[in-house]
Amino acid sequence: MTVALAERATLASLVARLGGELSGARGLRVVERLATPWEDDLSAGDLVPLTRARAASRLASTDAVLLVTPELAARVPGRALWCHPAPASVVAALLGEVARVPPVDERSRALVEAGAVVPTSVRVGAFAVIRAGAVLGEGCRVGAHAVVHGGVVLGARVVVGDGAVLGAPGFGWELGAAGAVRVPQLGGVRVGDDVEIGAHATVDAGTIGPTVLGAGAKLDAHVHVGHNARIGPGSIVAAQAGFAGSSRVGAGVLVGGQVGVADHVEIGDGARLAAKAGVIGDVPAGATYAGYPAVPRATWLRFHAAGRRRR
Amino acid sequence: MTVALAERATLASLVARLGGELSGARGLRVVERLATPWEDDLSAGDLVPLTRARAASRLASTDAVLLVTPELAARVPGRALWCHPAPASVVAALLGEVARVPPVDERSRALVEAGAVVPTSVRVGAFAVIRAGAVLGEGCRVGAHAVVHGGVVLGARVVVGDGAVLGAPGFGWELGAAGAVRVPQLGGVRVGDDVEIGAHATVDAGTIGPTVLGAGAKLDAHVHVGHNARIGPGSIVAAQAGFAGSSRVGAGVLVGGQVGVADHVEIGDGARLAAKAGVIGDVPAGATYAGYPAVPRATWLRFHAAGRRRR
Amino acid sequence: MTVALAERATLASLVARLGGELSGARGLRVVERLATPWEDDLSAGDLVPLTRARAASRLASTDAVLLVTPELAARVPGRALWCHPAPASVVAALLGEVARVPPVDERSRALVEAGAVVPTSVRVGAFAVIRAGAVLGEGCRVGAHAVVHGGVVLGARVVVGDGAVLGAPGFGWELGAAGAVRVPQLGGVRVGDDVEIGAHATVDAGTIGPTVLGAGAKLDAHVHVGHNARIGPGSIVAAQAGFAGSSRVGAGVLVGGQVGVADHVEIGDGARLAAKAGVIGDVPAGATYAGYPAVPRATWLRFHAAGRRRR
Repeated sequence: MTVALAERATLASLVARLGGELSGARGLRVVERLATPWEDDLSAGDLVPLTRARAASRLASTDAVLLVTPELAARVPGRALWCHPAPASVVAALLGEVARVPPVDERSRALVEAGAVVPTSVRVGAFAVIRAGAVLGEGCRVGAHAVVHGGVVLGARVVVGDGAVLGAPGFGWELGAAGAVRVPQLGGVRVGDDVEIGAHATVDAGTIGPTVLGAGAKLDAHVHVGHNARIGPGSIVAAQAGFAGSSRVGAGVLVGGQVGVADHVEIGDGARLAAKAGVIGDVPAGATYAGYPAVPRATWLRFHAAGRRRR
Repeated sequence: MTVALAERATLASLVARLGGELSGARGLRVVERLATPWEDDLSAGDLVPLTRARAASRLASTDAVLLVTPELAARVPGRALWCHPAPASVVAALLGEVARVPPVDERSRALVEAGAVVPTSVRVGAFAVIRAGAVLGEGCRVGAHAVVHGGVVLGARVVVGDGAVLGAPGFGWELGAAGAVRVPQLGGVRVGDDVEIGAHATVDAGTIGPTVLGAGAKLDAHVHVGHNARIGPGSIVAAQAGFAGSSRVGAGVLVGGQVGVADHVEIGDGARLAAKAGVIGDVPAGATYAGYPAVPRATWLRFHAAGRRRR
Repeated sequence: MTVALAERATLASLVARLGGELSGARGLRVVERLATPWEDDLSAGDLVPLTRARAASRLASTDAVLLVTPELAARVPGRALWCHPAPASVVAALLGEVARVPPVDERSRALVEAGAVVPTSVRVGAFAVIRAGAVLGEGCRVGAHAVVHGGVVLGARVVVGDGAVLGAPGFGWELGAAGAVRVPQLGGVRVGDDVEIGAHATVDAGTIGPTVLGAGAKLDAHVHVGHNARIGPGSIVAAQAGFAGSSRVGAGVLVGGQVGVADHVEIGDGARLAAKAGVIGDVPAGATYAGYPAVPRATWLRFHAAGRRRR
């Protein structure tokens, strides 16, 4: 598949604007499309971002310009190349210029209760539900079928994915002789500016104080944030990860897919949790953890390598 | 954040009603709010539940009354304390008295098919779908966007979370030369009284007989229960856990977040499965299992501790 | 629970039609119902599929006919048996004959935007959202609350589960000094014929080219397919599994529940990934992998067995 650029441009002008340098490609060549490596009809007007050497073999005879990191350039000798330290940023910039239809406000097809604060700058998707007591900041975009309960406060420009549920009561139970009795969860959810929450993510209401997502945090689809948990500003959380009640994640933390963080655990600023890690103890700032139970990633790899040699 | 109590009350009257004892705090002191430890404006009228010693240091100079277990009391010397064996039960009781708006019936905005049995005592959320052949007990509460298929029978007072899907066909396939052919799933779902099902949970229909959730079971968000599985009465299942087809969980079992239970596995009454456990064999009643593959929790911890020493 | 057959039939006629052979059961006996082993009122007109020896003890004195594999037959001596190499195929055939109400088109209660291509043979569920630029093939069935974004192309007879979200922007971010900046995702999703997608599954749009589900693939509930990933034709993916961006799964792969596949990893044709496997490297065609990090299943089992002996 291909995406036509917003405007045809010479390679030289693109490089001048977005950085990097050309190798084996004339600056006057005109680029018309971004294309994936597995297109059959690649031509001289196509720019193909190449992120893995693996795909290079499929491109042995193409006329297209390849957008590569300096490391990859050596693997595709004799080709028209645009070498750039961060090819993804070039792709992001070019795609961002392609005109797209902005989301329309569909609140006439949604349920916005009286008592919800929803500025006119907000775009509400079809069949969304915004309960009384919810407060949305300027420029928020709420997906189809999303539910925002009372007690949820969203900052500016928050994006809520299709079907995401914010502020449902947290999973708190008192176990007694008569079975489990619900602990009411009245603390709501507080979401900072520029947060993005994926499809079907759930962020539960806290008990007394709020569950918190810091400014600029990005949560992928199916992520679950338990009651009273805190995700720090700028942290990025991949799909299907889960945070148990009262867990605390610092700022700028990268969390892989399917990671689980146990209740009351603290993750330091800038830490990285590898995909599927099961974190049952605190993680220091800046550390990279993996495994179940999660340990420093190098320890985890040695453990498994040693165990297999010894068997 | 804070929650104002339903009624101002003296500490002495609260202790008389809810148990525990005072230490360093006068019984005549009046409590007005429940508050979290990280409030900036804590005052003598605040009651702060303290569940971890970690938060105590932030409270070195507060006038608030701390609600603590007897074990934690020694960590906060010289402070106004309410010692209670189960502080969470105090919080639950006080929050439960705070007036909340009861959910309204929104079935005019939902789709309740002719042929569904939905008593007038049931509260149906906006955009919910209740199919013909579904039978709901008295006092059920169905969240926004929930789907209840035909063949699902809910007991009394069942709470169905936003977006939960009950009774969709189970994932049964016959693999043949022409590809996978669906095995019809006509057994429905049977849910006992007082069950609570979280947002976006899915409970699939059984093949011939029903998939079963026993009375009083509590399922958190994103939980998946496969076809023909049985979750015993009073069992509590944390977020993102999954139960494969025909798995059987006994009564009063505690299941951590992201746990997976393989098909046909049996979990005995009162067992505990640690978060993220991957259970591929039976678990005896009363046992605590962890790990992947899941084993007794002590074995799991020794295995990992030994492996790391040896590397 | 039991399911009445579409038509009463003699055992002999069923065997003639569906294969297998009788043992200790007269061919003239008439079968009226399919029943599960734990029914209290089993009688001579019931056919009970028995998949595990475990359930046999409950059936010591029943008059029902047991449908078993030849392997299981020896475990239930002296009983009326229908031995069949694939009892599930018999169940599938008999249940498939039971009349069921076909799904009704509810697009008057859904939002189908102008600019979406939705043939009249498609059944759209209540409150579904089909955006401009989506193209659906003949005979598709879209569940309640499903969302199909622009750029999604569905083949013929695709089944989209309740609440599934297809074509939301993939989770691509450029991390810069000013925080994370979204990489636009304009590549859409391409789904082959006869694919089935479970409730609440999410399949994200690719960046330039599409995210792809091959013909005949079956995805269970809560499955997440990241941007630019490819799931091969005929592959079967159990609940809560996740595929990171640009991962590639071959044809006819069996993926267990809660499996995670890392970005850019390739899974060969016909491979099997055991439930909860965490796959961080390529898997050869035909191999069976398990564990986290995933390795050949036999290696994984030895590793854990040895580790536990040594502790």
